[in-house]
This record gives sequence, structure tokens and C-alpha cells, in this order.
Amino acid sequence: MKILITTVPFGYQSKLPIELLDSLDVEYLINPLDKKLTENELAEMIPDYDIVIAGTEPITEYVLSKAKKLKMISRVGIGLDSIDLLSAKKRGIKVSYTPDAPAPAVAELTIGLFISLLRSVQLSNIEMHNGNWKRYFGKRIANSTIGIIGLGRIGSRVLNRLTVFGTPRLLVNDLVLNSELDRKFKLEWVDKETIYRESDIISLHLPLTKATKNMVTKKELEIMRPDASIVNTSRGGIINEKDLFNVMDSGHLSGAAIDVFDKEPYEGDLQKINRCLLTSHMGSMSIDCRNRMEIESVEEALRYVKGEALKSEVPKEEYDSQRDGL
Amino acid sequence: MKILITTVPFGYQSKLPIELLDSLDVEYLINPLDKKLTENELAEMIPDYDIVIAGTEPITEYVLSKAKKLKMISRVGIGLDSIDLLSAKKRGIKVSYTPDAPAPAVAELTIGLFISLLRSVQLSNIEMHNGNWKRYFGKRIANSTIGIIGLGRIGSRVLNRLTVFGTPRLLVNDLVLNSELDRKFKLEWVDKETIYRESDIISLHLPLTKATKNMVTKKELEIMRPDASIVNTSRGGIINEKDLFNVMDSGHLSGAAIDVFDKEPYEGDLQKINRCLLTSHMGSMSIDCRNRMEIESVEEALRYVKGEALKSEVPKEEYDSQRDGL
Repeated sequence: MKILITTVPFGYQSKLPIELLDSLDVEYLINPLDKKLTENELAEMIPDYDIVIAGTEPITEYVLSKAKKLKMISRVGIGLDSIDLLSAKKRGIKVSYTPDAPAPAVAELTIGLFISLLRSVQLSNIEMHNGNWKRYFGKRIANSTIGIIGLGRIGSRVLNRLTVFGTPRLLVNDLVLNSELDRKFKLEWVDKETIYRESDIISLHLPLTKATKNMVTKKELEIMRPDASIVNTSRGGIINEKDLFNVMDSGHLSGAAIDVFDKEPYEGDLQKINRCLLTSHMGSMSIDCRNRMEIESVEEALRYVKGEALKSEVPKEEYDSQRDGL
Repeated sequence: MKILITTVPFGYQSKLPIELLDSLDVEYLINPLDKKLTENELAEMIPDYDIVIAGTEPITEYVLSKAKKLKMISRVGIGLDSIDLLSAKKRGIKVSYTPDAPAPAVAELTIGLFISLLRSVQLSNIEMHNGNWKRYFGKRIANSTIGIIGLGRIGSRVLNRLTVFGTPRLLVNDLVLNSELDRKFKLEWVDKETIYRESDIISLHLPLTKATKNMVTKKELEIMRPDASIVNTSRGGIINEKDLFNVMDSGHLSGAAIDVFDKEPYEGDLQKINRCLLTSHMGSMSIDCRNRMEIESVEEALRYVKGEALKSEVPKEEYDSQRDGL
């Protein structure tokens, strides 16, 4: 069996994922280009391999058509928008993922971004480095209206971490009402438009699907309060980047924190907006979560190699979601 | 009675402080220079006034010698390092302050700075705005050793807000052991050197006194772990700024978050260090806390005007502390 590891960095903070691979008689290659692969690069690399331990590079119909030997994809992380699940299924390729591992790191970063935006930390830092002293007024979480769209593994953890900062007004939206969260927190289940209109901070915790692609455009951004902020630590493409630039460039919104982009590495106009806090897809980049993601995905791949039952196959709903664009 | 309000901005987010002043037959002036006053500027302005509603400008022996009519100082905030308490006492000038009002805002900002530093948010933001995509590894609070020096109103609130992020190792140091905090949190009471040596993040929550001035110099910074960070949202001067620059410029420490400076507005070499997150003394700058500080200080000043008993006079220990340099 030959394994291609496309995600980088890999085995960087802990050698355990590599030791696990070495413990079995498998041949493996870690992405020699040391960057996120394009569709063509991956299509060229993939034909020889039985298993891919995958990052967020595009595993499209075209790539899979070249992957003659591929039997399994073990995704390091939670998002599946990069994988054509239906095409993989058609070819009998199994797909597993690590949906729980990144959640604590993403939720914690999200809270940090909330506080940075509410207090204009990113703006003050840039001003101070340019020699300008300006004291920005801000709000505490307790006095804010926080709107959360998507209450899955990450959105619910964000809610949980907000509790210690007092009692903000919490506006939430998801496809299904979660009665457990509803008992635990004082939530207002509202439509998305109410979230856009009334929140001080909006945070997106959604997968990228046909339904969420370009969910936040000029129209949605413009009904936000002029002093509101928006946070995206989920997937690029959900907020239309050009629209976000145009709206912020016009002076609307007090801030945004964008960790994920349409095309990564990101280069684009948001770089020109100082009140737009930009990070390089670092939501899951805490050492412990990253290690857990790598170890879990290697363990799953090795289960396949040993003919054992898989433990974290992607559930049917994810396939349905890609088929129906939900 | 004539009141001089030196702190700016004042009455900016809420008109209530000004309405309170207008409700009594007092004459008042809001700092016409709209910036932190120097000793000379204040000395020139102060002779006519009976009461000062004060920011952090220097109310020194020299200033007080010019303040022939001054009967009361009502400080908007908690720090008293800017006021020569003993000289005020000698002249029969009463001093009040608002020690509780800023604490929630400072504690919340501090947590945001912890997360920013642990995940290199400030660095990634600057790199991204310069067009450089680099994914930084970080740590979660739960996997970190957090060292807190000073467990008063703010330090204890920081502890409290950490609880929701898991169970970091908590190293703490204060002049007296606080048994209530000790019951509530799993604390290790250690000497300062242990905090410097073992923490991933060190946070200072101390007044500026003779004893804390230059408490953190090259020596202390150099025994910190190379990948550790330090946060100061308390008072400038406790960390020696030149030493911090030199040590960070040499490559030591992964980050620092500095909100308070020796001389404010700050200009200096720390501006050159991208991994040094700089903010412009914004700890208490949440609208709600700032309003509460302004309202409480005005109410206290008006109690004096009306001959009522004062409610938040600076306690004896603060005078002792200035006398003894504790």
C-alpha cells in the first residue's frame, strides 16, 4: 500500500504521526512541494497511491479520474468542500475525516477575534506601529449582541466559551433547533436577516456548500449595523471577498476577522483594509489539535491498511448535502 | 465651586456625566488641550480650581504647590501612581477613585491578548497585510502555563475568565495569599522567578509603585522561555521598555502585548517589533466601564460639593504603599 500525504505541515510538531506510519509496512510520501497543491499538481501526483491523507487541496472529479489505485481518503480536518464526495463514492473510494479534533482550537481563536474586534485591537496595533496614538472605544461581550450562524461542533463551543464574559444577547441560526443548547444558553433563534441587522458581531460556523457559497454578499453586509463586525473562521467563499472589500472600503462596518479565503494562500484587496484582521487559516493550528488531527487521520488510514473497520467515515448526510446543495 | 476635568475623552459616549455636572451650580472646564496634560500644563491650569476630576496626568508635589484652592481629587480609574498622595494629604486634599469600574473591561481585553499571543494573531495580521501567507502554530490556553503576578480586582477576574478554556497550569504571585481564590481555582503560589522561568504567558496586574517600577528588566525577560509571551495591561514602567525592545530584537520571546507605557502617548522602539502587539492604553476603554468610571467620579465630586460623605476615598493602604514603596 502506498500513502500520499498532501497536507502540510505534517509531523512537524509531533513525530507520532510519522512513527505510526513507520510502524507498518507502508510506503508513504509527504507532499514534496510543501504547499497547498493545485488540482493539476495533485492529479499528476496521485495515480500511484492507494490512500491520500488529505488537506484542503481540491480532490475533484478530474483528480479522482487520475487516481486509478485510490481506495481511501483520510481527511485531516473537518471541511469536506474540497472533496467531490459523490465522485469518490461512485468509484468506491472511502472517505474519513477528523471532525472533532479542530473544534476547540477554532472556538478559542474565534473568541480571541471577537475581543480583538470589539476593542479595535488590530487597528490600534497597526496605528501604534505607525507611530499613531489613538484610543479606541470598544464594547465588552456582555454589552454586545452576538449573532452565530451555525451551531455545530464549533459554533456550540463558541457559545460555551462566551458564558464567562457575562450575558450578551445571543442571536442564533441553524437548520435545526438544538434543544440541548437551548436549555443551556439563553438563545434567540432568529432568521439570518435578523442576525445581520441586529448583531454587533456575526460569526459564521458553517461548511462550504452550494447553499452557503456567497451567503454573505453586499446585500447582507449592508444591512449590518455600521459599527458591527463579522468573523469567518469556517470556510472561504461563504463571505464574498470582493463585496466585503467594497463595503468596508466605503467605510461601513467597524471590523472583520477573516481566517479563511476563497483561494489560499490569500492575496487580494482585503490587505488594504486595516480594520480587517487577517490570519492565514490558523483556526485549527494549535499544536494539540493539529497533532490530534494528524494522528487520528493516520490511525484511520492504517485501519484501512490492516483491513480493520473504519471509525470516522464521513456520514451519509455529508453526501446528501453535496448532492442537494444544502 | 470650580471643577477641572483633565481626563479626556470625557462625556463622549454618554452625556450623563455632563448632565450630572449641569444639575448642580458648579462651574466646570473640560481639558481644552484634549490630550494628556504634562506636569507644567496642569500646574498652569490648576490654580483656580477646587476639584479635579483626574486622568493619569502627573499630580505631583509641584502641581499641588500651585493648586492653592484644591480641596479634592476625584480620579477616573484605579491607578494612583500619577498622584502624590502624601503631598495631597499634607495639604488636606481628599482623594477618591473608582477602583472597581475598569476591572471587567481590562480583564476581558487581557484574555483577548492572551489568545492573540498564543496564536500569533498580531503577527499573522501584519504579515497578511504585507502579502505574506505563513501559518503559525500556536497553543490553546488549556495546554499553556499561565503566570499571573498580582491577584487584585483585575488579576482575579482574569483567572475567572480563563476557566472556560480548560485547565491551564496557573502560576500566581501576590503579596498575600488569597484563600478564596485558592479554593476556587487550582493555583500554584510561586515566587516571581518561577513565573518568569516556567510560564508560556506572563500577565502583570499590579499598581506602579517604587517596588514594581522596573520589576521586569533584561534579567527577568531573559530567564523567560524563548517562546513565551508577556502581557502588560496594568501600568507602564513595570516592564522596562528599552530592555523589552533589546530582548525581543535579539529574537527572544514569541510575543508581547503592551497596552501601557512609561510615557503616553507612546513613541519608541517597540514599534519596530512586529511580534509586539501594541495598544494605546485601552484596557478600560469599553463604553460601559468608561461611563461607569466617569459617572462614579463625578458623583463623588458632587458629594464633596454638596457636603455629603464621600463613598470611595482612597484607603490608607494606598498612602502607606506610596510612603513605603510597596
